[in-house]
Amino acid sequence: MRWIRFTDAAGTHYGLLEGERVRKVAGSPFDGYETTGEWAELAQVRLEVPVIPRTFYCAGLNYAEHTIEAARKRGQEPQLPKQADIGYRANNALVPHGHDVVIPPDARTIHYEGELVVVIGREARNLTPDEALDCVLGYTIGNDVSERNWQRSDRTLWRAKNTDTFKPMGPWIDTDFDPREAQTRVRVNGKTTTEFPTAAMIFDIRTFLSTMSRYLTLHPGDVVWMGTDGQSPDLKAGDVVEVEITGLGTLRNTFVQG
Amino acid sequence: MRWIRFTDAAGTHYGLLEGERVRKVAGSPFDGYETTGEWAELAQVRLEVPVIPRTFYCAGLNYAEHTIEAARKRGQEPQLPKQADIGYRANNALVPHGHDVVIPPDARTIHYEGELVVVIGREARNLTPDEALDCVLGYTIGNDVSERNWQRSDRTLWRAKNTDTFKPMGPWIDTDFDPREAQTRVRVNGKTTTEFPTAAMIFDIRTFLSTMSRYLTLHPGDVVWMGTDGQSPDLKAGDVVEVEITGLGTLRNTFVQG
Repeated sequence: MRWIRFTDAAGTHYGLLEGERVRKVAGSPFDGYETTGEWAELAQVRLEVPVIPRTFYCAGLNYAEHTIEAARKRGQEPQLPKQADIGYRANNALVPHGHDVVIPPDARTIHYEGELVVVIGREARNLTPDEALDCVLGYTIGNDVSERNWQRSDRTLWRAKNTDTFKPMGPWIDTDFDPREAQTRVRVNGKTTTEFPTAAMIFDIRTFLSTMSRYLTLHPGDVVWMGTDGQSPDLKAGDVVEVEITGLGTLRNTFVQG
Repeated sequence: MRWIRFTDAAGTHYGLLEGERVRKVAGSPFDGYETTGEWAELAQVRLEVPVIPRTFYCAGLNYAEHTIEAARKRGQEPQLPKQADIGYRANNALVPHGHDVVIPPDARTIHYEGELVVVIGREARNLTPDEALDCVLGYTIGNDVSERNWQRSDRTLWRAKNTDTFKPMGPWIDTDFDPREAQTRVRVNGKTTTEFPTAAMIFDIRTFLSTMSRYLTLHPGDVVWMGTDGQSPDLKAGDVVEVEITGLGTLRNTFVQG
């Protein structure tokens, strides 16, 4: 099933998507819920990011071509990550499907990174790889928008990766999606610019979750962005970027000048 | 005034500390509140971390001696940060005043870092340095516990800094505290091992908040840990670490073997 989070005249709620209609629920997929008997039309509601995570994890480098190209552009020898060291992004930067990505006036080189997002559904610690997927509620899509000059110049990724609106996530959480056969395709203004097998990760989801859970507790609502492959063209104001993961959905955002 | 967050038989609440008693409130200092007429005894309640932040910011290197010593131990030339690049920590690692810090079995070199924590009270964007403190609700204390071998070996700070229980924060949020004349003192088993003027930062609070707010929106409940000075001895199971900031309070935690 597909969970959406949305706002209508009555407030912000979770709902279950059925075709073009939304079955409203009381509660959430993380704390328990009941269906209410109320419905909304998908076209009539405002989509929100499907969850404000308690902790926003992000694998960063987790596909070979992206890692090699990123190193080459910095004039460095490419070095594939040797272990599943998770990184972080920041909640201030999250925006939903359909929301504009605002390019700051002093930004120069803006790139997309289309990513599979794992949504944690229940508390977990010390998972084996075999049981790691048991804590997963479902999957959504993220676009890890990046400003490459700040990524080189700054001591941290704060504005390169976490400027407001730089983390589109959505449109929904799909609880039945299976990443194994999926393709990730990114389109700019309708033209495919990047395509890769979603599962061609250096460290897969089971490895990341089991490694992380040796040292930290995963909580309901945590998200883990799994990294990207390939390269982005330089984006400009007016570009419409779509991240499609086949079988899961399409996350679409327009880039505008701030 | 001093805000505490606590759990009693009726659940988790905010309250206002008055001597050894807590005036219970409905709501929170971030979303609005009303006093309830109910009281609790401080000794009878369980303290919680004073806020689960929406985004958990951390300055990292922000005092000269700590930066120079950290570089020296890595065999590198010390380089003071050139701009106020904020970093991040993770919510899973937060524990309150009085909670044990659990040293993982494979950890080797555990250090404390006593830090002033700024708690954001209202939404803010594009702050000038002069107006930056207007969005601050108050201050609390943090201990940025670190495992130095993982800090060197891993690609990110995930387990070096964000292992469960590695981020004690508390005991309360003080809305009247003024950092300008304060001293930060860290004691291990009652003996002072580090002391420095809290305000002797490379980039002060106004500079960080105004710089951050050029690119990101600060939200109520966000926290900004301001960095530490000096060096920690190697800690061991059984050590009791107290971070005192004069005029603000003392954050005390016992380190135990995991």
